[in-house]
Amino acid sequence: MEGWIDAAAAPLPPRAVALADIAPVLAEGAVLAGPVTAPGDWPPADRAARDGVAVASSDTLGAGSYNPVPLPGAVTVAAGEPMPPGTDAVLPVEAIQNDGGFVEALGSAAPGEGVERRGEGVSAGTVMLEAGHRLRPQDIGLLAALEIATLLIGPRPRVRIVLAGGPRSGPETLGAMLSALVARDGGAVELVGPLPADRAALAAAYAAPGADLLISAGRTGVGEDDVAPLALADAGELALHGVALRPGDSAALGRAGGVPALLLPGEPMACLTAYELLAGRAVRRLAGRNPALPHPAVEAVAARKMVSEIGCTELYRVRRTVDGMVEPVASPHRPGLAGAVRADGFVVIPAESEGVPAGATVTLRCFDGTSL
Amino acid sequence: MEGWIDAAAAPLPPRAVALADIAPVLAEGAVLAGPVTAPGDWPPADRAARDGVAVASSDTLGAGSYNPVPLPGAVTVAAGEPMPPGTDAVLPVEAIQNDGGFVEALGSAAPGEGVERRGEGVSAGTVMLEAGHRLRPQDIGLLAALEIATLLIGPRPRVRIVLAGGPRSGPETLGAMLSALVARDGGAVELVGPLPADRAALAAAYAAPGADLLISAGRTGVGEDDVAPLALADAGELALHGVALRPGDSAALGRAGGVPALLLPGEPMACLTAYELLAGRAVRRLAGRNPALPHPAVEAVAARKMVSEIGCTELYRVRRTVDGMVEPVASPHRPGLAGAVRADGFVVIPAESEGVPAGATVTLRCFDGTSL
Repeated sequence: MEGWIDAAAAPLPPRAVALADIAPVLAEGAVLAGPVTAPGDWPPADRAARDGVAVASSDTLGAGSYNPVPLPGAVTVAAGEPMPPGTDAVLPVEAIQNDGGFVEALGSAAPGEGVERRGEGVSAGTVMLEAGHRLRPQDIGLLAALEIATLLIGPRPRVRIVLAGGPRSGPETLGAMLSALVARDGGAVELVGPLPADRAALAAAYAAPGADLLISAGRTGVGEDDVAPLALADAGELALHGVALRPGDSAALGRAGGVPALLLPGEPMACLTAYELLAGRAVRRLAGRNPALPHPAVEAVAARKMVSEIGCTELYRVRRTVDGMVEPVASPHRPGLAGAVRADGFVVIPAESEGVPAGATVTLRCFDGTSL
Repeated sequence: MEGWIDAAAAPLPPRAVALADIAPVLAEGAVLAGPVTAPGDWPPADRAARDGVAVASSDTLGAGSYNPVPLPGAVTVAAGEPMPPGTDAVLPVEAIQNDGGFVEALGSAAPGEGVERRGEGVSAGTVMLEAGHRLRPQDIGLLAALEIATLLIGPRPRVRIVLAGGPRSGPETLGAMLSALVARDGGAVELVGPLPADRAALAAAYAAPGADLLISAGRTGVGEDDVAPLALADAGELALHGVALRPGDSAALGRAGGVPALLLPGEPMACLTAYELLAGRAVRRLAGRNPALPHPAVEAVAARKMVSEIGCTELYRVRRTVDGMVEPVASPHRPGLAGAVRADGFVVIPAESEGVPAGATVTLRCFDGTSL
């Protein structure tokens, strides 16, 4: 399924954003679309690293509080100001005595002391930030100093979320949850519905132009009202219905209106699981981000066994125990989000595994710490 | 200084947000202003946990593929639908044979099998989420299912950032960096400037109404142009100028226009440090968040010694080494953001410590993983 998603959802073209407008884009978790290279040395010339008096260090030899040394040409500098010609050190104000304009050094300075050398921070041509790097506030500060005015960052795919109504609580209540998940992964949400379980109405919503990805929730099962896969076939192509994933096995993949489409189950826990393991990957791919799960991964010891059917990827909701292990709070067979709310994270048992015994090391994927 | 900030910056009143409008608020990293209690059982009645046929389990005793058992009153149910009266289990479709409306069970069901019991997810009155909890997508899904329409969440303080211009690169380039930092900590930014180093102009910008917190960058040093502390005294109160923090020792604290005010140095690294260790705490306090540093903390071994002056809190920019230790990339005395861009995080040496030797365990605060 990952292969299908990666083939169907290629990264969209990057967008150019002015550095002055970057703060809200950082809040979306933007990543660089390409490397950023220093256009010049930083700092561009030797400059004061602190407030004080710029001196030729050789003029201060032997100076001390009992041996003040006159500094006839002394120039006061603020941190960040260029070094005046003929100077190579900055004495701090505490090491200066100023008596009506007659300036004396009360201490000596070594060459380069209190000075930030040209290129000390970054030298011209250095790759400062790699493609895919998630921008941090200090990166923006350095880029502004280097007078880089525009950045190429990952695109913001337009994701249509269609809610195909069902029994309460089903898909009709999932709009805010799915919107938050798509925003976390870098997408801009268009929320449609809840719509009735009507094949033609769903097909029209699926095929409408203006989206880069379609995600639908509900009506993917085997009942009479489960018209979402049929509607997808009408709107484009139903490539696969039924996936080896628990919860979430009624999910479907295909295309609608020329873009990739993922149908998620309406049962809320199955919907969350199919989003995390399938749809989220498509959003992150389109957004030019790392397609892997965004949840921080930590190694942990299983407090109890977690069994899984061979051939089926199963997701266990788990919580940390007081002794630092993880234990399941709900079987993959149990529906409902209450277990995911109680959980600290989840453990994925891959298809080729029949599970892990108590005491085994597993990878805990933390719900907290996924950053937007 | 933390005590001063905590006293000066009390949490603002919480705000009510409709669940339908919560997705962008999640993107801001919103936290709950109070606990959320389940208003009723979830699910509110026994219901199907999977698609299939609702049965009385006693009717299926002994059924098997070689011993089909007739189910005359069988009712098809979709996952999430209430259990019909007189039924207590759901047989999956694979365990059913339907020949023109004549339904037979090909397997037996235990009582409760395939059923989600009333209150199994959450029972009425349970505290589901604590005050201060950072909302996650699945929380929103469960709250929607429980028909909780409105949440009380932490406020969004209005933070005015005044740039007091200086030598390039100084405060005039720090707007985007500071805006991103304030947004990360939950504030809404009003960016003013860059303004000239004019005492009256700065005082007017500091004292203007409409902000919950004032942050100014630049002109805090000891030079003639360093008028920010004087302007703060004019606009309200200069409580402290000069803090035992490196980099960042020219920072100042006070009040302006009736709200807390923090003056940060214009040197970019000193500005970043003073934001992280002082101003950010004020933003998080006002926003009702955990005031502690938001950077994930991990234990690590120092690859080299880090010395620090007693009485001064010093911040080392560090990177991880290939063997999993951390080493400084720049001394606290060195200016510039280039070191912070190369760094994976930072180590704070507290005022009462004279530093740590190589091999000591330190707390690495990671730049990545701070979530917005």
